Amino acid sequence: MESKLIEYTKKLVEIPSVIGNEKQIADFVESFLVNFYKKENIIRHNNSIIAFDNINPSKKTIALIGHLDTVPGENEYTGQVIDGKIFGLGASDMKSGLAVMMALIEYFSNREKRFNTIYIFYEKEEGPYIDNGLEPLLKNFDIIQKTDLAFALEPTDNRVQVGCLGTMHASIIFEGKRAHSARPWQGENAIHKSVNFLKRLANFGVKEYEFEGMKFYEVMNATMVDFSGGRNIIPDKFVVNVNYRFAPGKTIEEAKQDILKIVDGEAKVEFTDLCPSGRVCLDNVILKEFVNSFGLTVEAKQAWTDVARLSLYGIDAVNFGPGNASQAHQKNEYVEIKNIIDNFNIFRNFLGN
Amino acid sequence: MESKLIEYTKKLVEIPSVIGNEKQIADFVESFLVNFYKKENIIRHNNSIIAFDNINPSKKTIALIGHLDTVPGENEYTGQVIDGKIFGLGASDMKSGLAVMMALIEYFSNREKRFNTIYIFYEKEEGPYIDNGLEPLLKNFDIIQKTDLAFALEPTDNRVQVGCLGTMHASIIFEGKRAHSARPWQGENAIHKSVNFLKRLANFGVKEYEFEGMKFYEVMNATMVDFSGGRNIIPDKFVVNVNYRFAPGKTIEEAKQDILKIVDGEAKVEFTDLCPSGRVCLDNVILKEFVNSFGLTVEAKQAWTDVARLSLYGIDAVNFGPGNASQAHQKNEYVEIKNIIDNFNIFRNFLGN
Repeated sequence: MESKLIEYTKKLVEIPSVIGNEKQIADFVESFLVNFYKKENIIRHNNSIIAFDNINPSKKTIALIGHLDTVPGENEYTGQVIDGKIFGLGASDMKSGLAVMMALIEYFSNREKRFNTIYIFYEKEEGPYIDNGLEPLLKNFDIIQKTDLAFALEPTDNRVQVGCLGTMHASIIFEGKRAHSARPWQGENAIHKSVNFLKRLANFGVKEYEFEGMKFYEVMNATMVDFSGGRNIIPDKFVVNVNYRFAPGKTIEEAKQDILKIVDGEAKVEFTDLCPSGRVCLDNVILKEFVNSFGLTVEAKQAWTDVARLSLYGIDAVNFGPGNASQAHQKNEYVEIKNIIDNFNIFRNFLGN
Repeated sequence: MESKLIEYTKKLVEIPSVIGNEKQIADFVESFLVNFYKKENIIRHNNSIIAFDNINPSKKTIALIGHLDTVPGENEYTGQVIDGKIFGLGASDMKSGLAVMMALIEYFSNREKRFNTIYIFYEKEEGPYIDNGLEPLLKNFDIIQKTDLAFALEPTDNRVQVGCLGTMHASIIFEGKRAHSARPWQGENAIHKSVNFLKRLANFGVKEYEFEGMKFYEVMNATMVDFSGGRNIIPDKFVVNVNYRFAPGKTIEEAKQDILKIVDGEAKVEFTDLCPSGRVCLDNVILKEFVNSFGLTVEAKQAWTDVARLSLYGIDAVNFGPGNASQAHQKNEYVEIKNIIDNFNIFRNFLGN
């Protein structure tokens, strides 16, 4: 399947699919799927697609999932193979993962499997939590609930990444009073009001947090600022966007309290984009077998992925994909062909009889 | 002249002249001036105009100056007279001052004066120091150097405002290293780097500074912020715009040092818009007579005006105008007719024999 894996990865990176523009790539994937699935086993929902087996209740069910979209970005070598690498926007994140899914579908189209399989190709992963294309699939199509273990083929360098940090954003809003900057005593400087808060925030540091034997690191950062005013105006509004990454085992509500403690009543707080943490499902028996059979490295996921969304729906999930994590969202992104082949072989051996 | 003062103020506020769009109002003023001055006594430079007497060396020379432009703004009652007030954008800042200048020109067109007079109507006062329309006039037309005392008819509620604070802006640039906000230890948060600086800045407070018996208040404020990054990115750049208002007697260089001391080497500093302070010219004999003759209130100017620019060119200057200072740059700006008449009468009595 080596040449197929290369061919599919190249084809996929050659189809632009920046978030919000997934129609063309979804059409391409769908036209591929119809060769291997009956019509009634393919669900197209907007630009997301589910392809599923008729569930044999004597078998466990594995889901393989991948998002079709990419962030915006530049690549000078799209579709080129250089030094054992395939270049293209999304090569690592995560079109090589999609290529593995396609190759597995083709490979098992005339072979026996140990598991029922569900393949999910979905849109809009690279944007806000609320617009994510996996959400309506989970909400509307019960077939996904049959899953005993899901693999998101996000770039992990063929390591198994379990759990994931929750993430939330909060707008910390300091309000002052506008005045001419030559007479600040007639107003109140909203930027100056924030200094004690910013100091506490900067001192939050990195908190190690162990959960089911895996180490996660909680961090809280100011990522954006905004203000209302002008060159010669005492600003009457200063807004700090805080991003908080919190460990599995902590609820959204507990995480909110952590932020409120740092703010200490000195400003208004508006929470946005509340993404729960993902369960560390090392107790999942299928996962245990998977890890042991192939001697895979297991590590904590120090970022948010849709594993958390699956968690919320009661589905155990891990990240395991061929992409190079450090290539994600980089200019001239690439993926190593060797990793794609390794990833495919592991899944082939795992799923096969 | 009461009806003339009202008429001119109304006409002037009815001509829009937001900074950069002074052609129409300059044309209007020029068409007025040609009725009273010979062609060779009017200088038009872009949208600024100087009208001057042939200098009689046995007389002292007084300059009256006013800017033609306004800030952008809204006014629902443009040109209306309500309760003894004339409404319109620029009514106080400073078209009523321009109306007084026009009325004085008309009044003295067939009367004797104690002084040579120079009238300066200029563009682009409400923007950056460097674009100011008075600067090229001072640079190019030596006639202004004849001035023994200049009055800027800025809104002062008919008080004499002497000296003026210097003002400068500095971009305080904190540089960090970009990283994913789930892994901040791979980067350096430029916003977090600023906290000690911001704390010192907020603690600067208000410094009273006495100069030639007048009290000025030095203040330093963050007025704007900018950053480079995104929601889930550790920002690699955070820029704080600091505005510093410093007392007369302090040089630009000394004021720069005050800012550098607060920054304490923690960030790059780029100085912009360096406006010197204005000399407190209470020793000017003409000013002494002016103040005493009319029993006027004298106060320090707690803001920057073109008085400082005249200072730089060795010309003593004060602010003295009919506008209401608190109306400047306000929505539905107005000026009180009584103040316009009082201002005119004071200048008429002062300039006349």
